[in-house]
Amino acid sequence: MLKTEENVFQSKLLEGYDRTMNQSGVSGERLAARLAELSKIGSTEENGSYRIGFSKEERKAKELVKSWMIKAGLMVKEDGAGNLFGRLEGKNKELASVISGSHVDSVPNGGHFDGPLGVLAALEVVEAWKETGYKPERPYEVVVFTDEEGSRFNGGLRGSRAICGELNMEEEIRKIDQQGNSFQKVIESDGLTLQGFKGSKRELDTVKAFVEVHIEQGSTLERENVAVGVVTGIAGPSWLKISFYGKAGHAGNTPMGERNDALVAASEFVGQVSQIPQRLSKTAVATVGKLQVYPNGVNVIPGKVELYVDIRDIHQETLDQLTGEIAKKALEIGDQHGISVEYEQTLNVSPVPIQEEMQQRLIEAVEANGIKPVLLPSGAGHDAMVLGRHVPSGMIFVRSQDGISHNPKEWTSLGDCVQSVHVLKTAIESLTAE
Amino acid sequence: MLKTEENVFQSKLLEGYDRTMNQSGVSGERLAARLAELSKIGSTEENGSYRIGFSKEERKAKELVKSWMIKAGLMVKEDGAGNLFGRLEGKNKELASVISGSHVDSVPNGGHFDGPLGVLAALEVVEAWKETGYKPERPYEVVVFTDEEGSRFNGGLRGSRAICGELNMEEEIRKIDQQGNSFQKVIESDGLTLQGFKGSKRELDTVKAFVEVHIEQGSTLERENVAVGVVTGIAGPSWLKISFYGKAGHAGNTPMGERNDALVAASEFVGQVSQIPQRLSKTAVATVGKLQVYPNGVNVIPGKVELYVDIRDIHQETLDQLTGEIAKKALEIGDQHGISVEYEQTLNVSPVPIQEEMQQRLIEAVEANGIKPVLLPSGAGHDAMVLGRHVPSGMIFVRSQDGISHNPKEWTSLGDCVQSVHVLKTAIESLTAE
Repeated sequence: MLKTEENVFQSKLLEGYDRTMNQSGVSGERLAARLAELSKIGSTEENGSYRIGFSKEERKAKELVKSWMIKAGLMVKEDGAGNLFGRLEGKNKELASVISGSHVDSVPNGGHFDGPLGVLAALEVVEAWKETGYKPERPYEVVVFTDEEGSRFNGGLRGSRAICGELNMEEEIRKIDQQGNSFQKVIESDGLTLQGFKGSKRELDTVKAFVEVHIEQGSTLERENVAVGVVTGIAGPSWLKISFYGKAGHAGNTPMGERNDALVAASEFVGQVSQIPQRLSKTAVATVGKLQVYPNGVNVIPGKVELYVDIRDIHQETLDQLTGEIAKKALEIGDQHGISVEYEQTLNVSPVPIQEEMQQRLIEAVEANGIKPVLLPSGAGHDAMVLGRHVPSGMIFVRSQDGISHNPKEWTSLGDCVQSVHVLKTAIESLTAE
Repeated sequence: MLKTEENVFQSKLLEGYDRTMNQSGVSGERLAARLAELSKIGSTEENGSYRIGFSKEERKAKELVKSWMIKAGLMVKEDGAGNLFGRLEGKNKELASVISGSHVDSVPNGGHFDGPLGVLAALEVVEAWKETGYKPERPYEVVVFTDEEGSRFNGGLRGSRAICGELNMEEEIRKIDQQGNSFQKVIESDGLTLQGFKGSKRELDTVKAFVEVHIEQGSTLERENVAVGVVTGIAGPSWLKISFYGKAGHAGNTPMGERNDALVAASEFVGQVSQIPQRLSKTAVATVGKLQVYPNGVNVIPGKVELYVDIRDIHQETLDQLTGEIAKKALEIGDQHGISVEYEQTLNVSPVPIQEEMQQRLIEAVEANGIKPVLLPSGAGHDAMVLGRHVPSGMIFVRSQDGISHNPKEWTSLGDCVQSVHVLKTAIESLTAE
């Protein structure tokens, strides 16, 4: 990124920033400068971010965060999976830590907020405390998780899964990236070892709670006109692959009443998929995103349609129920159209609800900062989803402009970023106090 | 084709053939032998037919038909477009001719009836007359049209368009086949010339009527349980290319009520397209055969759908009305879903209705042969569609097993083929008598 461009990003962040938000030691200018510094690492031609897991760019970003952690007075430690922990000792060193953070890797040509904001917000809490002289009762740790996006190898959330003991190393070792490099070779090029990765499981009774700040990557907060929201649960995706088998034929020579048109049946199904979730759960969604027609000729009645339904909810029960109802609907519609239907579930990830107690604490932190509490589910997976299966975990979502993410156009105003720091700080102070 | 295979096709034709159908000089055995002889030319591994326009195989098939024409006592002439005419002089040589025939080219790996049956049925009428000593009042011509399928260059119906003066030679000359050969080079390799092609326009007042026997390529006759049917008109295709522009987004992070899902809108439209034709016309059909979703990712709400509607009817008025209503429906559905819709008509071929008088004459020929008259439209184009724009033309459809065509599995029983000869013979005798 050229000198002028780096200034563009930082200037754009500072444009219209309300300096009265710099309260209790929190500095919007510092946050903007650090977001801008990180954005320079792996900057793409479209001013996006290219810092895939285990790359030189991810490493360079970690080193930069590490230098800030040290400057802020944190004790820095990197585990065998490359996760970076910056620890602020509590008044009582024996107590389990409260942790906050996110990741600094990105998807190819991604944005500058997805990940970095969560890390820098967690760090800004320490900076603020430093300025005001606040000391937490419990230890507080700022974390940078390795390879959250999983752009290099199938999977992702690799750092958080490693500390939670969820990584199957036998599977990992077999993975090969697009350039044909093995998992071992790639992590070794990042200074890590298989042995270290295997040993990175953390004793989770040393963790009292985990809180992650993350951009929403949707537009609910934008519509609600609030800077931040409290996540109620992280949806698990259930994927159904469904095939509709009709009878291909010449589009001109088959009267309408005599057809077994696979696309007409599949289309009725797509319509139903858009209606069913609301009937079962307020937080459920279902999407037909991928659909292929065969043979896909202008003058040929479709003989086959293959499609995928992506179904999500934050409650296992409704997710299962919804998956079942959607599959049943496909069979019903097939019957009505004389179309044979086959389906299989190709992905089934359990949702992680956020505990009521944690939600309540985050709602109080939001309200304490004068913000209307908005509750919303997370449709995408995050490190907090992995941690949430093992320790009390919460998430604070920050308003995303137009809901755009994984894209150079990803944007969150500095004011909203700073609001998320204030809310996080309140929440961490509450969590570390007990 | 190996000796054993050639016998297989011919034996299969003769299997269960009712020899009492060999009446009035018509011979099922001769017809079967000739269909089998033609099937050997360009036979594919799957026992299909590969005789694309202007190929050595099409030429060889024409030469074979020519030898049969000569043997049957016809005066044979090939015009500059490679169309083969075998003329039987009428008692009155001055009268305009009645013509019957079809084509001997095929699509790649096509069947053995699409084209050849129409040519051999027309020739069998002459054979039958020869046996019974019948002489028509008017001249009768058996025709083999060049390149009906158009598998080599865009277009098709090239021989019939040439004699009707419908071929734009300036356009033809610019055409290049998949091997990079120019139109001129290809036709010259078949012994034809540009000059000859240009000069092949026939004086159409020398033609009293044209009748084509062709397999149905649909399954209406099979359902009606009759061997042959009378075509009421040849549908013209009208193609609409329609784009639905929604808003892509993460399938997990966008609540159901807040989506602009291009595929949900397009799917409602596909359902409507399957319902609208019946409301306007008994013979109309409309098909969405080709549809593409963008970006087509399992976890991405479709941002764009592009599809084609193939609309056909035998009446210009209802075809236009249907095209208009379908386009209007797309816009309406777009409005309801907050989806912007664009459309364009990419093809618009006028339908050719068969004149009432010709239909009546063919119905009488069907009834005279003890068959229930079934009337049906042709959804696909044929040489009779081209001729029908200039001279009174009719079509007799023959039952197709399972409606399959353009496929090695294309099949019509010999009994049905012979029935079509009887009906054609009655019709030609009626047409040549006046």
